Amino acid sequence: MNKSEAVSVKSTQMEGNKSLYIIKIGGNVIDNSENLYHFLKDFTALDGYKILVHGGGKVATQVAEDMGIEAKLVDGRRITDIETLRVVTMVYGGLINKNIVAQLQRFGTNAIGLTGADGNFIQAIKRPVKTIDYGFVGDIHEKSINPDNISRLMEAGFTPAFCALTHDGEGQLLNTNADTIASALAVSLSSLYDTTLIYCFEKKGVLQDIDDEDSLIREINPEHYEELKIKKIIHSGMLPKLDNAFTAIACGVKAVIIGKSDDLGNLKNNKPFGTRLSKNA
Amino acid sequence: MNKSEAVSVKSTQMEGNKSLYIIKIGGNVIDNSENLYHFLKDFTALDGYKILVHGGGKVATQVAEDMGIEAKLVDGRRITDIETLRVVTMVYGGLINKNIVAQLQRFGTNAIGLTGADGNFIQAIKRPVKTIDYGFVGDIHEKSINPDNISRLMEAGFTPAFCALTHDGEGQLLNTNADTIASALAVSLSSLYDTTLIYCFEKKGVLQDIDDEDSLIREINPEHYEELKIKKIIHSGMLPKLDNAFTAIACGVKAVIIGKSDDLGNLKNNKPFGTRLSKNA
Repeated sequence: MNKSEAVSVKSTQMEGNKSLYIIKIGGNVIDNSENLYHFLKDFTALDGYKILVHGGGKVATQVAEDMGIEAKLVDGRRITDIETLRVVTMVYGGLINKNIVAQLQRFGTNAIGLTGADGNFIQAIKRPVKTIDYGFVGDIHEKSINPDNISRLMEAGFTPAFCALTHDGEGQLLNTNADTIASALAVSLSSLYDTTLIYCFEKKGVLQDIDDEDSLIREINPEHYEELKIKKIIHSGMLPKLDNAFTAIACGVKAVIIGKSDDLGNLKNNKPFGTRLSKNA
Repeated sequence: MNKSEAVSVKSTQMEGNKSLYIIKIGGNVIDNSENLYHFLKDFTALDGYKILVHGGGKVATQVAEDMGIEAKLVDGRRITDIETLRVVTMVYGGLINKNIVAQLQRFGTNAIGLTGADGNFIQAIKRPVKTIDYGFVGDIHEKSINPDNISRLMEAGFTPAFCALTHDGEGQLLNTNADTIASALAVSLSSLYDTTLIYCFEKKGVLQDIDDEDSLIREINPEHYEELKIKKIIHSGMLPKLDNAFTAIACGVKAVIIGKSDDLGNLKNNKPFGTRLSKNA
């Protein structure tokens, strides 16, 4: 190593890793054009590296209905049969994803719309049939994501926008939960970036009282989380969300924020946004 | 410039530009899974930089029918109304494009599926309304394509697969002819690469006698082309195809090949493939 290389390595270490936001949006943003407009504008305003992950929303159900394809349920669980996979490939990968990309370009984000098949970014395994055959559903595993591959795309100046589709590496597209994709990306990319994972949902964050939007809990660490569970302040639907978030943090993600897309602009302005989950201080 | 830089510039100049193939496929490949399989395998085997461009095929018509959307024609010309744009965004940008990408990944091509909105790769202008309102159709213009932007993606190790969609830069997706996209990409990227544009169609190439596949004309230059037109050997449907090809060549494209997708493998093996159009010797 010559002298100038040594200086450059040192300055990189002093600066730490580059920061990356991975932001997941669902139906309450996608299905409402005004919410989506504001979200994409605020997303564009954020500095640093960014990845958008979006779910499906109501439009897939609507298109399936228009095409006369019935939702398949077995024991109350939704099944992705071949017809449903066609619909979600059209709606997630085409209609929603490409309209989001066109909007992001309008605001100045140089987005590229992706499934996990593109760039071989996310490989999954078709869920094995045990009691239920879920059809073309892809499960993420430890080696699903190659962070260097995604990093090359971002370093070339592009902002990835992922929909909820993956592939098996053998030519088969698969339907994968968008929350899971976001969290797997965050864990994997934490090896290269200081990664903050943001879940946008319909509430302002984790609330002390679910009926009072003013009862937002600003920060939760694992210790605090255990207390909140014991006191039954956090229960039912929020538990798996927060369990997954703390798992991501244990796997290297710097912080997970759960908040309302309307408030995303606060992040840019250093104002409080949602509930921030992080390691014990 | 220091000595090692001078050497490196010289060796680059001696090597000439890197070679690039831009290959367009249409319905006769897309609608036939066996043809598509072989084409994507042969595409993968080709050395050097590559871009795939695909049209729509029958599946868009089928999906529109399934959704109860009628084809809109005015004076015999197809119109892209908002409903039709939704369908082509789903089918071209989602269903066809992402299945092609998943297949390419299976064969080992690190493809990324794109519309012109992705990466802001292809901007178009919504066709002005004169006598007919074509709806959401995008016309390509001189500054539609930024070759450096596409080059950055390819240099990062990815192979672009474009569908027949562009955008206006203001958030609107547009429907653009795939032949036109392929030719505009070829002209634009000729500034950076030795570019060969390949149109795959249902015949072996330009034929002396349209009913005899053995009457293939191997090479045509502009001089020869004038003769063939005078002798009425080339007429009707082939004229606009070849006119466009020679325009692309006049604008810097090294060669245009018109051939059958079955024969693409010949290119890899230095065997004759289709009709090669190039400059006068």
